[in-house]
Amino acid sequence: MSQDQYVVGVDFGTLSGRAVVVRVADGAELGTATHEYAHGVLDRSLPGRPTPLPPDWALQVPEDYRTVLRSAVPEALAASGVDPAQVIGIATDFTACTMVPTLADGTPLNEVPGFCDRPHAYVKLWKHHAAQGQADRINELAEHRGEGWLPRYGGLISSEWEFAKGLQVFEEDREVYDRMERWVEAADWIVWQLCGTYVRNACTAGYKGIRQDGAYPSPEFLAELAPGFESFVPDKLDQPIGQLGDRAGGLTAEASGWTGLPEGIAVAVGNVDAHVTAPAAQAVGPGQMVAIMGTSTCHVMSSDTLREVQGMCGVVDGGIVAGSWGYEAGQSGVGDIFGWFVSNAVPRSYAEQAAAAGESVHDLLTRLASEQEVGEHGLVALDWHSGNRSVLVDHELSGLVVGQTLATRPEDTYRALLEATAFGTRVIVETFRDSGVPVEEFIVAGGLAKNPLLMQIYADVTRLPLSVIGSQQGPALGSAIHAAVAAGAYPDVALAAKSMGKVTRDAYVPDEDRARCYDELFEQYLALHDHFGRHTTTMRRLKAIRRAAAQRRHDRTTNGATR
Amino acid sequence: MSQDQYVVGVDFGTLSGRAVVVRVADGAELGTATHEYAHGVLDRSLPGRPTPLPPDWALQVPEDYRTVLRSAVPEALAASGVDPAQVIGIATDFTACTMVPTLADGTPLNEVPGFCDRPHAYVKLWKHHAAQGQADRINELAEHRGEGWLPRYGGLISSEWEFAKGLQVFEEDREVYDRMERWVEAADWIVWQLCGTYVRNACTAGYKGIRQDGAYPSPEFLAELAPGFESFVPDKLDQPIGQLGDRAGGLTAEASGWTGLPEGIAVAVGNVDAHVTAPAAQAVGPGQMVAIMGTSTCHVMSSDTLREVQGMCGVVDGGIVAGSWGYEAGQSGVGDIFGWFVSNAVPRSYAEQAAAAGESVHDLLTRLASEQEVGEHGLVALDWHSGNRSVLVDHELSGLVVGQTLATRPEDTYRALLEATAFGTRVIVETFRDSGVPVEEFIVAGGLAKNPLLMQIYADVTRLPLSVIGSQQGPALGSAIHAAVAAGAYPDVALAAKSMGKVTRDAYVPDEDRARCYDELFEQYLALHDHFGRHTTTMRRLKAIRRAAAQRRHDRTTNGATR
Repeated sequence: MSQDQYVVGVDFGTLSGRAVVVRVADGAELGTATHEYAHGVLDRSLPGRPTPLPPDWALQVPEDYRTVLRSAVPEALAASGVDPAQVIGIATDFTACTMVPTLADGTPLNEVPGFCDRPHAYVKLWKHHAAQGQADRINELAEHRGEGWLPRYGGLISSEWEFAKGLQVFEEDREVYDRMERWVEAADWIVWQLCGTYVRNACTAGYKGIRQDGAYPSPEFLAELAPGFESFVPDKLDQPIGQLGDRAGGLTAEASGWTGLPEGIAVAVGNVDAHVTAPAAQAVGPGQMVAIMGTSTCHVMSSDTLREVQGMCGVVDGGIVAGSWGYEAGQSGVGDIFGWFVSNAVPRSYAEQAAAAGESVHDLLTRLASEQEVGEHGLVALDWHSGNRSVLVDHELSGLVVGQTLATRPEDTYRALLEATAFGTRVIVETFRDSGVPVEEFIVAGGLAKNPLLMQIYADVTRLPLSVIGSQQGPALGSAIHAAVAAGAYPDVALAAKSMGKVTRDAYVPDEDRARCYDELFEQYLALHDHFGRHTTTMRRLKAIRRAAAQRRHDRTTNGATR
Repeated sequence: MSQDQYVVGVDFGTLSGRAVVVRVADGAELGTATHEYAHGVLDRSLPGRPTPLPPDWALQVPEDYRTVLRSAVPEALAASGVDPAQVIGIATDFTACTMVPTLADGTPLNEVPGFCDRPHAYVKLWKHHAAQGQADRINELAEHRGEGWLPRYGGLISSEWEFAKGLQVFEEDREVYDRMERWVEAADWIVWQLCGTYVRNACTAGYKGIRQDGAYPSPEFLAELAPGFESFVPDKLDQPIGQLGDRAGGLTAEASGWTGLPEGIAVAVGNVDAHVTAPAAQAVGPGQMVAIMGTSTCHVMSSDTLREVQGMCGVVDGGIVAGSWGYEAGQSGVGDIFGWFVSNAVPRSYAEQAAAAGESVHDLLTRLASEQEVGEHGLVALDWHSGNRSVLVDHELSGLVVGQTLATRPEDTYRALLEATAFGTRVIVETFRDSGVPVEEFIVAGGLAKNPLLMQIYADVTRLPLSVIGSQQGPALGSAIHAAVAAGAYPDVALAAKSMGKVTRDAYVPDEDRARCYDELFEQYLALHDHFGRHTTTMRRLKAIRRAAAQRRHDRTTNGATR
C-alpha cells in the first residue's frame, strides 16, 4: 500500500458540510474543513419571502451543497498539506431521505425560472414531516393489499421517505410535480454534480425508495393510492443502481475546478451519513449496532440473516456493505432536543454561570446532572419532540415531560431528556433482540459521543458495552474509506475498514446498580411510550388542533390584508 | 355610620403579611404596608443548619408573623394618616392549613430551648406535602369504617390538613409531639398573640380540623389509625369555637405596643385568606364562586343547601359566613407554577427583551402568548406541579406538559400552563354543578386578577361571566370587614360586605368561538387528568423513585462524612 495516496470524504449534514483528507494506507486524517449552509434549514419561510411555511416543513437550498464542494474541499486540502495530485478519489455521504426535485439534467427546480417562490420546488430535508397524511395512506393501502415489501420496513413507511414526500408534491403542487423530471436523493444529486452521471445508490434506493428484490411498489398500488401517480417510478424515480463502494464516474472538469482535485479521479457511488459510518468504526459485523448520534440518531447493523423487525426503518440487501443485510432504525430527535432545551428553556442565571466558568450551557447542565443519583429528579420524558422514527414510526407524536414540581431545576429536565433518548434506544435494541437480531455491542459515532454522562447513561440503560469511534468525523472518514475502495486501493469496504477505521472498544461499561434503577424508570417510560404511542390519540389530536389554529391565523391574516 | 371610624385588616400570605387601614363607612382603603417574612418558606433546610429537609417539606418561622404586626401595621397606619385612636378593631386572615406546634401558653415549639434544630418543631405551611402517607391511611381507614364525616370532604382528607400533619409529627418525632401542648392553626395563633386568648375559628376547625356537627373524628378511629394517637383531639386540638365575625377578645397591652393601636379594641376571630375574601368581593350568595388566585387558588362559595361534592376540600356550616353552608375547593399550584416557569425555564434572550422593553418576563410572555390563536401552540399541560387539591386530592401527582416540538417557544408553554390552571378550575366547576351546586358567576380576587389574558382564558374555558374584586388587597379588606363586625359597627358580615366590599361585575365574558376551541383542548386535558390522576400510578411511582434516590444520596453523603 502506497504511503502517498490520499482520498477525500465529504459529509453533508443537516446544517453544514465537512470535508476530510485521509491517507489511504492507515486512515490518518490530515486535514479537515467545514462549511455552514448559508440558508440552513428553511422551516419558517422561503429565502427573502414573508409567507410562512406550514408547520412541520423543512426545506433546503441545493446551491448550499455545491458551496461545500467549492469551499470546504479546497480548505481541507490546504490544511492537510497534501499535494492534490496524490488524491485518488472522492466520496460523499448525505442526510437521508433528503430529496431534490430536478430537471433531466439535474438542475434543481428552485433554480428554474418561475419556480423560486414555490416551496415544493426546494429540497425536502429528511426532517420535513409534513407528508404524514400521505405516509398514513401508503401504509393503510399497503397493509390492506398485503404488499410484500411492507414488512421489510417494520410494517410502516415513513413520512420522511421518497414516496410520501413525492406524493405530497403530486397532491399539493401539480405544476411542480409535472415540471420535475427526476426526484433525486441528495446523496445521488451531489455525486451527479461531481461526475456528471446520475447513479442511484443501493442504500437509499432500498431504505428510502422502497426498492426490494430489484423492484419498486407496483403501478397498480400507486394508481390505487392516487390516480395519476401510477407512473411515478418510471417517470421520476427509476435509475440504474450502484453498489456502495463502486465507482460512479470520474471527476468532471467543472467539479475539478470547484474542488481543486484532479479531473477524472474516482467518484464513489453516493451514500448516507449513518451507513457510511459503520466501516469508519470497524463495525460491519453481526451484533454490532452503530449509533450515529447527532441532531438525530441513526442505528445501523449488518447481519447475515433476514428478519422482520417491527418499526425498524428497513432491511436492505447491501444497504450498509455489499453482501450483507443492512438493518436500520432511528430516533428523529436526539441532540436536536437537547439543543432546543438549551435555547428555549434554560434561564439567564445558568447562561451567566456557564459564561463565568468558561463552559457551554450544555457542559454546565451535564456537570450538574452528573451529580445526581438515578431517579433523583423524579422525571420521565418522551423523546418525541421531532416525532418517533423507530419503533412507532409516527411523526404526529410529540414531546412529553412528566413529574415536574416547583423544585424541578433545569438540570433535572435536561437529564430526563438525555435519559429519554437512551430509553428510546433501549426500545429499539429490545425490539431487534425480540425479532431474532440480537445486539451485542453498541458503537457510538457522532458529536454526542463526547458527552461522557450521556454515554454512561446509554451503557447503563441498555446494559451493553459501549464502544466509541476513534474519529471526530466518522461519516467523512467513512466516505473516505468508500473513496479508497472506489479508486481500487482496497478490494472491498470491509478490508478498507480494517486499515482505515478507528474505534475505542468498551469505552463505557454498564454499572449494575444504576442499571437496576434505570429499569424502574424505563418501566415508566415504556408505559408512557405505549399509552401515547399506541393506545391514545392525544398527540395526534394536539397536532390537528395546532394545524386548525394555524389555519385560522392564516385566514385572519389574509382577511386582514385584503380588508 | 360615623365617617371617622376605621379598622385594620391584616392578611398573612405565603411569603409576606399585608396590613390595610379601611374606613368602616364605605370600605375606602386609606393606607397599606407589606412586610416580607425574613425566612420565607423553609423547603431546603432549617435556618442556619446545613442538613437538607426531605422532599415536599415546607416550614415557616412564627416570629416572622409577629414581625408583620410590629412593622406592617404601624406603617399602614402612618401611610393612611388615620389617628390610631379612631381605629375600633383589627382582624386577621391566614394561609391554611398552616399549623403551629405550641406550649399551653402559645409559645411555638421552635422557640423552646432544645427544639430549634427539630424540623417538626416549626410551622408546617399549607404546602408542606410530606404527610401524604398519613393522609392515605386516614382516607383508607375512614372509608373502610364508613366515617360519616368523610363525604363532607369530598371523600378525601388532604395531606395538607391538621390530622395528617399532626399524625406525621406523632410518627416521625415523638419528642416534639409529646412536648407540644397545642396544635394550633396559625390563623388562631396570630389572634392569640393579639388578644391573649386562644379561640378556635369555625372555618379552619371545620375545613381543616374535620369538625362536623360539633364533633371531631372519634378516639376509636384515631386509635385504629395509630395506637397512642387516640387522645390527639382533647390533648392537642380541642378548644372553644368562635364564629366568623365574632369578637375573640380585646387587644392586649403588648400587642398595642407592637401595632400602635389602642389597647382593648376588638380583635376578631381568626379566618382564612380565601374565605375572608368572599365578602370583600360582595360574593356571599349561592352560585357566586370566589376564586382567590395567587400562588395557589382557593375557591369558596356559599349555599343554602348541603350537598356532597366529590373531591371538594369541604363543606362547613358557617365556614364562610355564619348561617350558610360554605363550600371550598382549591388548586395547589397556580401562580406558583407560572413563577417557577419564569425562574427556571425562560431563556436569557427573553429576560433581556423584557428588560429592554421595561416590562416583567411575565408581562412579556403574556403579551406574546396573547397573540396566539387557541390551540396554536399544540400543547396541553397538567397543573399539578404542587399536587392536586381538587378534585383528585393527591399531592403525589406532579406536572406534565405534552405536545412540545422543536418549534415550541417559551410563550407557548407559558400559555399552556395558564390554560392548564383554567382547565383545573373547569373540572372543579363541573364537579360542583354535577353534584347539585351550580356555579353562575366566577369572581376573581388575588394577584393574578391583573393578568387580562389569564382572566379571559378563564372566562372562555369555563363559559362563565367573570367578575373581578375591586380591591388590590381582597383578603386584607375582607379581614377589615370582619373587624368592623367584631367591633359592632355592622350587625353581620353580609351587611358589612354591602357597604365595604367592592367588585367589577362581568369584567370578562366568554367568547363562544374561543370557548369551542377550548372544548377540544379540555377534552385532551380531561383524558390526561383521568389517566394520570385516576388510572395509572406513574406519578406516584416517580415520587417514590425520587424519594429512594434522595435516600441513596443521603446514605452516600453520610457514609462519605464518617469515613
